[in-house]
Amino acid sequence: MEALKQKIREEGIVLSEQVLKVDAFLNHQIDPRLMQQVGHEFAERFKGQGITKIVTIEASGIAPAVMAGLELGVPVIFARKFQSLTLKNDLLISKVFSFTKQTESTIAISAKHLTAADNVLVIDDFLANGHAAKALIDLIQQAGASVAGIGIVIEKSFQEGRALLQSEGYRIESLARVASLADGKVTFVD
Amino acid sequence: MEALKQKIREEGIVLSEQVLKVDAFLNHQIDPRLMQQVGHEFAERFKGQGITKIVTIEASGIAPAVMAGLELGVPVIFARKFQSLTLKNDLLISKVFSFTKQTESTIAISAKHLTAADNVLVIDDFLANGHAAKALIDLIQQAGASVAGIGIVIEKSFQEGRALLQSEGYRIESLARVASLADGKVTFVD
Repeated sequence: MEALKQKIREEGIVLSEQVLKVDAFLNHQIDPRLMQQVGHEFAERFKGQGITKIVTIEASGIAPAVMAGLELGVPVIFARKFQSLTLKNDLLISKVFSFTKQTESTIAISAKHLTAADNVLVIDDFLANGHAAKALIDLIQQAGASVAGIGIVIEKSFQEGRALLQSEGYRIESLARVASLADGKVTFVD
Repeated sequence: MEALKQKIREEGIVLSEQVLKVDAFLNHQIDPRLMQQVGHEFAERFKGQGITKIVTIEASGIAPAVMAGLELGVPVIFARKFQSLTLKNDLLISKVFSFTKQTESTIAISAKHLTAADNVLVIDDFLANGHAAKALIDLIQQAGASVAGIGIVIEKSFQEGRALLQSEGYRIESLARVASLADGKVTFVD
């Protein structure tokens, strides 16, 4: 998606060979017009798949997910993150380990919002090692629902997330695929 | 805003005389079409005020804020919440006490995204005692920026938030004003 790549080139900050900071337009300050274009692009790629719900994770997944939900005409659920959480009856719960923060957190979705009849599109801002996406898929499967695919705003293609998810048969659509952050420069796949 | 009140009547759950649960369409599952209408209504009420930025707080403020930002053509910044936070040079920081959770948390905005030239619309999902809005205003004032007004999706008018903020001269636009949650029933102002 060219508008997104352009924005990454102009406003993304390469902090290291692993870390791309996009807090100017995606995960702290948000560019609503770009998010609308992102939502439109997700809808184009996944339309006709019988999607009934979108699931994302707070906080940075919400803006792209809501814009995609608007275009596809489906509700969006955002999983909540907890540092610790007492088990509750009405919650679906999974764990996700963050390499960036070196902490494990619990994510949860209210069981009443997902059913076995749902066909779910997972949306997230970043795909790196795939742990967050895997935890969201775990929640969806606990509900007995199907995973229609995974929509990612920015994929760090030099990490193992895509390979991991593809090996399990999931369709992944990433709107910008970063091949490398070497030499302080963003290089895209293709 | 009638569509919002209708949704609250149909899908809001009165948990107590103090607590209205709206996780079916606002703060866990999100109705994107309703959020678009909410954003449109905020834009109608605040257009022509020279607003340059919207500031909200993660996670439930993001969807209505991004839709308002799309209509007004301005960026949205969401303040991040931390349980604890080491002081950092480039962050504006404030504290907010949650009566619901009985915990104090720290909220922060990157200083580089707000300047003294900004005229800021504050948006949040709920107004109760006004502590979250006050903390956001504190961050905006630390940046030397102006507060154009406060847009609230659901106001609990039986709590002191509106009076507190009005006494300090702020304009508040709430799209649904709840007068009472007595007898398990939502009663709106007017």
